[in-house]
Amino acid sequence: MEPGSPLVSEAAWAMAVHGGAGVIESNRMTAEREAIFRVGLARALEAGQCVLAEGGAALDAVAASVRAFENDPEFNAGRGAVFTHEGKSELDAAIMDGRDRRTGAVAQVTRTKNPVDLARRVMDDSPHVLLAGLGADAFSREQGLEQVDPSYFRTEARWQQYEELKRTETFDRALKYGTVGAVARDAHGHLAAATSTGGLTGKRWGRVGDTPIAGAGTWADNRSVAVSGTGTGEEFIRVGVAHEIEARVRLMGATPLAAARAVIDGELTPMRGSGGVIVMGRDGPGVWAFNSPGMYRARVMQGGEAEIAIFADDAGGGTLNRRAPLRGQT
Amino acid sequence: MEPGSPLVSEAAWAMAVHGGAGVIESNRMTAEREAIFRVGLARALEAGQCVLAEGGAALDAVAASVRAFENDPEFNAGRGAVFTHEGKSELDAAIMDGRDRRTGAVAQVTRTKNPVDLARRVMDDSPHVLLAGLGADAFSREQGLEQVDPSYFRTEARWQQYEELKRTETFDRALKYGTVGAVARDAHGHLAAATSTGGLTGKRWGRVGDTPIAGAGTWADNRSVAVSGTGTGEEFIRVGVAHEIEARVRLMGATPLAAARAVIDGELTPMRGSGGVIVMGRDGPGVWAFNSPGMYRARVMQGGEAEIAIFADDAGGGTLNRRAPLRGQT
Repeated sequence: MEPGSPLVSEAAWAMAVHGGAGVIESNRMTAEREAIFRVGLARALEAGQCVLAEGGAALDAVAASVRAFENDPEFNAGRGAVFTHEGKSELDAAIMDGRDRRTGAVAQVTRTKNPVDLARRVMDDSPHVLLAGLGADAFSREQGLEQVDPSYFRTEARWQQYEELKRTETFDRALKYGTVGAVARDAHGHLAAATSTGGLTGKRWGRVGDTPIAGAGTWADNRSVAVSGTGTGEEFIRVGVAHEIEARVRLMGATPLAAARAVIDGELTPMRGSGGVIVMGRDGPGVWAFNSPGMYRARVMQGGEAEIAIFADDAGGGTLNRRAPLRGQT
Repeated sequence: MEPGSPLVSEAAWAMAVHGGAGVIESNRMTAEREAIFRVGLARALEAGQCVLAEGGAALDAVAASVRAFENDPEFNAGRGAVFTHEGKSELDAAIMDGRDRRTGAVAQVTRTKNPVDLARRVMDDSPHVLLAGLGADAFSREQGLEQVDPSYFRTEARWQQYEELKRTETFDRALKYGTVGAVARDAHGHLAAATSTGGLTGKRWGRVGDTPIAGAGTWADNRSVAVSGTGTGEEFIRVGVAHEIEARVRLMGATPLAAARAVIDGELTPMRGSGGVIVMGRDGPGVWAFNSPGMYRARVMQGGEAEIAIFADDAGGGTLNRRAPLRGQT
């Protein structure tokens, strides 16, 4: 969408990841915690980056990054997921292939080690797009995916957060514990997106958030962009955030950054929704936009350095996009 | 979107309903069966029409129409729903308010007599948007909605269809048994949409289709249109049919009919998806578009007569839209 940019070739691969958006502020985080999150972001980014650098597919890259987040107990996906009102782990994930808009998603999964892999199986090996609850667990077993005891997902830190939230309020509206996701463009110019989450702390009644809802938390279309979102899921669904950003790029010719900003600022914020997105377009680096105090995020593009950022005013560590301001929207 | 039309005032109320799209052909249907469906369509239309004629809200009108369909054993929603692979009834429904895009939806409900009422309760009385499975059933009981034994949903005709499909193939890809929905504009110009279904005959593993997915099978935005869809749910999700139609009206200024046609013909058909939509704009009558041999559909507008149609070349019984051709897209 920046055809004049001399350093960007049509098929330069690029990768961006997020580990959640919310009340993430530098004055409330110790240097040690910050370092842990930066390492986690770097690892997840690198997992996808390695796939792309070797000529792999965007679809495999986003799955690799999300899998890395799911295996990292610091992020709210897979191991380290938050707890439902009943103190259980119910995991949601989605993946989408921009080539043909094939997609797969799962909701309320309780025993699959890597929910993003199950979403991929739904896409590749079932005639359906979204499976939920006990049926999704059964499909996972039939597919031979690695099963774990629910205690695998539990970490002591998350359990303390759950106990604290139970004492104070029903939900984690401050969204301290995020969602993870990745968007990628491979050397063939194909786009893909994937998202995974434990959802909202204290969620009840089989609540499904935006993550497994195609068009809300996840979307990919080779004609325009791939999007992965994180935030107050209910408002993301009501706006159709991911599809809305994609539609503005495809139908109106907006740049990915302009579309992301317009949807976060003009649609999500007035609805009192909070959160952010990462967006990968047909060229250039991945971009992000968020209206929360912070968002765990990272990106890298072929020939460039990795950039890792957490806070709204965090300049990141890379050089890819210096021309654009980084005040929460780059 | 037809500002020159002399008979249409901005706040003329209008209503459209559908009872499913699929392989519905006049040479395969007895006159008796056809009469039964026409009566069912007329009743569902009238239920919403009465709300609007008395100055009621679009949101209440679409709920009333969908409730009538759910109570009618001839349509695949509520009583008369199709069966899952395991021979059970798992019901999905959604409702959306165009005023503020509040929405509620449920998936895999097994004991609520009218799933559309439960979707409404999710919207009005829960902090969530989508509830699935056992949690949705529990929320329904907590809300005091009418509960029924699962045998209530079973009709002998549906069971025979299920047995026949089990013998021949896994799924009802021919979509003989549809989904129901309604779109409305009230005298204040507010738009709303609702959709309800038993899903796909033989669905497995907790499959969730497009009906409860905001943006796929259901969408409403006062700025543009309300949409309810019916068809091969997986492809409806991959296209984001309802939101895509709405976005084209809002972002590109397309008429509701042009947008509906473009999305069905240009996006859904190339993906080998099948089905149709009803769309209500800010003025004029409701419109429809479908690529299947038939679609159970009906509409009425303030001051006009009800129009009921089933087959692609069915001219309906009304006078509202004679100027437009009725070859499956009006």
